[in-house]
Amino acid sequence: MEYIVELGKKAKKAQSTLASASTALKNDALTAISAALRAGKNEILAANAMDLESGKSNGMSESLLDRLALSEKRIDDIADSVLDIAALPDPVGRVKDGSVRPNGLSIEKIAVPLGTIAVIFEARPNVTIDAAALCLKSGNTVILRGGKEAINSNKATANIMRKAISDIGLDENCIQLVENTDRETANALMKLNGYIDVLIPRGGAGLINSVVQNATVPVIETGVGNCHIYVDKTADIDMAVNIIFNAKTSRPSVCNAAESLVIHRDIAAAALPAIKLKLDEKNVELYGDEEARKIIDIAPATEEDWGTEYLDYKMSVKTVGSVEEAIEHINTYSTGHSEAIITSDYNSAQKFTQLVNSSAVYVNASTRFTDGGQFGFGAEIGISTQRLHARGPIGLPELTTTKFVIRGNGQIR
Amino acid sequence: MEYIVELGKKAKKAQSTLASASTALKNDALTAISAALRAGKNEILAANAMDLESGKSNGMSESLLDRLALSEKRIDDIADSVLDIAALPDPVGRVKDGSVRPNGLSIEKIAVPLGTIAVIFEARPNVTIDAAALCLKSGNTVILRGGKEAINSNKATANIMRKAISDIGLDENCIQLVENTDRETANALMKLNGYIDVLIPRGGAGLINSVVQNATVPVIETGVGNCHIYVDKTADIDMAVNIIFNAKTSRPSVCNAAESLVIHRDIAAAALPAIKLKLDEKNVELYGDEEARKIIDIAPATEEDWGTEYLDYKMSVKTVGSVEEAIEHINTYSTGHSEAIITSDYNSAQKFTQLVNSSAVYVNASTRFTDGGQFGFGAEIGISTQRLHARGPIGLPELTTTKFVIRGNGQIR
Repeated sequence: MEYIVELGKKAKKAQSTLASASTALKNDALTAISAALRAGKNEILAANAMDLESGKSNGMSESLLDRLALSEKRIDDIADSVLDIAALPDPVGRVKDGSVRPNGLSIEKIAVPLGTIAVIFEARPNVTIDAAALCLKSGNTVILRGGKEAINSNKATANIMRKAISDIGLDENCIQLVENTDRETANALMKLNGYIDVLIPRGGAGLINSVVQNATVPVIETGVGNCHIYVDKTADIDMAVNIIFNAKTSRPSVCNAAESLVIHRDIAAAALPAIKLKLDEKNVELYGDEEARKIIDIAPATEEDWGTEYLDYKMSVKTVGSVEEAIEHINTYSTGHSEAIITSDYNSAQKFTQLVNSSAVYVNASTRFTDGGQFGFGAEIGISTQRLHARGPIGLPELTTTKFVIRGNGQIR
Repeated sequence: MEYIVELGKKAKKAQSTLASASTALKNDALTAISAALRAGKNEILAANAMDLESGKSNGMSESLLDRLALSEKRIDDIADSVLDIAALPDPVGRVKDGSVRPNGLSIEKIAVPLGTIAVIFEARPNVTIDAAALCLKSGNTVILRGGKEAINSNKATANIMRKAISDIGLDENCIQLVENTDRETANALMKLNGYIDVLIPRGGAGLINSVVQNATVPVIETGVGNCHIYVDKTADIDMAVNIIFNAKTSRPSVCNAAESLVIHRDIAAAALPAIKLKLDEKNVELYGDEEARKIIDIAPATEEDWGTEYLDYKMSVKTVGSVEEAIEHINTYSTGHSEAIITSDYNSAQKFTQLVNSSAVYVNASTRFTDGGQFGFGAEIGISTQRLHARGPIGLPELTTTKFVIRGNGQIR
C-alpha cells in the first residue's frame, strides 16, 4: 500500500535527524507543542465537536463520548503533561555498560532510540498527543493511527504539533498521523517491516488481539488486565475489604482495576460478607463458585467469568484451599498484568511474589498502583503485558534500545 | 494442532518449577548434561551417521554435511561448552532497580526468566545442546525445532539431556524437541500464543524471514549480517587492508563477516589496489561500481549486490564522496548487524558511531568481533538484528525479563 510506505519512508528520513537531536532541541520542541496546543484550543475544540456530533448520530455510548470529548480544561491538562514529559530525563545516550577487552577494544553499550514507533489506538484524542510527546522525547519518530471516531480531533492536534516542531527546526515528519482510517491501512501498517521498528497497540482486547494476529513488525502488547486479588487465610480482613473496594471501584474501566477475587476457604465465611457489604456501596455484581455462594447470595460464575476482564462494576469470586491453588488459578486465567495477595504470612507472601507470573505482583496493596506515575517513572505509553523488551509501565527508558560502539586501533580476530 | 499444544502445555508446567529452581540445581543439571553427552557419544554418533547417510543420498553439499557432522572431538567440545555455561553467573533474581515510594510502597524490579522459549533452527546439531543449556541456565523451558536433516542426531541428544535432568530431579520437559519436522508443525509453533513467550529463529535469511512473516508469538530476529567496512579518506591503508582481509576471509560463512566495502574516493586510488592484492590471496571476487572499476579490474556490481549477504569469498565495492554518503549507503542496505569505519579523523569516527543504525558499530576494528564470547558475555544464543528487547549478542541476561514486586501494608490509591 503506497500511502503507508510513503509514511514509513518519511518517518525513517526524519528519524535520521531526530536520533541525534540534542536534549535541548527536543525539550524546545515539546515546549513549543505545549504552547501551540493552548493557542490552538478553538481549532481543536471545533474539530472535536465534529467528532462528537457524528459519534452521537452514530449512537455512540455515553462513556465512549466522554472519552472522546475534549474541553478547554482537558486541553490545558494535556498541554501540562507535555511539559511534564519535557522535564523528564532524556533516556538517549546513557552508557549502560562498558568494558575494555584484553585485546584493547573498548566496548560501550549505549541507549539509542528504538527508531520509528507506530501506535494504533481507539477514540481517545489525548493519546495522540501523549504518544507523540513520549516518542519525541525518546528520539523516536512516530506514526499514529487513531480510531475513525476521533479523526477530526486527531488531524487538528497532529497538524498543530507538526507545525510547532517544524517552526523550531525539526522535521515535521517526526510526528505523522495516518489520515486514512480504514482497516486495510491499519493492516498495512502492521506489516510495514523495514520502516516500523515497534508497534504499540493501545486499546481493548479486540484491538490488541487483532494486532498480535496480524502484525509482522515487532509488537509490544499492552493493557489487557484480568487482575486478581487473593485473600489469604491470614489476611487482615479490614485491609482486604479496603484494598478490594479500591482496586475494583476506584476506576473500573482501567486495566489495573481488579476483576477477580480469589479467597482462601478458611477465611471466606468471615471475610466474604464484609467484602460484599462494602462492594454493595457501588452495586458491584459478584459471580461466585458454589462455595462462595453458600456464604453470600451472589450469582453463579461460569468458566468464562474466570477469564473475563469486565472493566465494569463486576467481579468474580473463586474459593481455594491454599496459596498454591490460588497461584495456579491466577497463572491459568491471568493476562499477566497485576495481581495482589492480602496476607500476614511471610511464606505465603514469598510464594506468591515468586510464583505468580505477572508484570506486577503486590503484597498488601491495591493493583491500581501499576502505573508509570505511581511507580515514579513519569509518563507512560502503556502497560506491557508481554515478556519481551518491556514489562509493566512503558516509560521513556523502555522506548530506547541499545547500540554497541566498539573503538579499536586495528584489532582483528 | 494438538501435538504442538501438548508440547506447549508441558513446557508451561515445567516452567513453573524451573523458574524458581536454585542456581545450584540448574548448575547440577548442566553438569549432568555434560557428563551424559560424553557418556552417550556412541549413541549420538550412531544417530548422526544416519543423518549423514541420508544427507549424502539426498545430495547435501560438502559444507552442509560438515555442519551436520559430529565427532568424538566435537561432542567433547560441546560438553565443555555446557560446563562453561554452568560457570556463568545466574541472570535470574538480580534486583535491577528499586525504590520506596512516598506512600511507603517498596518497589523492586527483579530479573525473571522469559518463560518458554522456542528455537527454530537448521541442520546444526550443536545448536540443540547450546540452546537447551542457555535456556536451562536462565530458567526458561525450551522447545527445540531443528531441521529434518539432523532429526536423528537431535533426538539422540535431546533424549540424553532429558534423561540427565530428570535423573537429578528436574522435569524432563524443561527441554523438549519437536520430533515432527514438517512445515505445518513449525507454523503451529510460530502461532502458539499463550505458551511460547519468545521465538528465536537461528539460520539463514529464508528461515528468519519465514518466521517474521508467520509468527504471532514475539520473535527475536537474529543473524542476517550484510556487514560493511567503510574506508575513510584519512584511513591508515595498512590497517584497512588487514581489517578488511580479516573481516572478509577469516570465516566467510558467519554473520559477522564483512560483505561490502565502502570507500572514500580520495583514498580509493591508493587503497583499492592494496586491498585487492591482499584479498587475491583468498581469491575473493569483488563487485564494484564504475569508479572502483576504473582503479581495479573487477566485475560490475548490480543494485542487488548492495543488499546481498554473500556468506562467501565475495564482496561488493562502493565509492562515496563523504562519510555522510557512506552512512546513508550503509543505513539503506545494512541488515543492522555490524559495520566498521577505518579512519584517523575524530569527526568522521564520531559521526559514524552516532549515525549508523546497527547493533554494533566499530572504529578501526574488524566486524568479526560481534560475538558474545569476544564481548566478554560468555555464550550467546544468537545475534539480534532487531531493536526490541535484545540487540547484538544475546547472552544469558537477554534471556530474562523483569517483574515488579511491590510490598505494602494496606496502601490504596
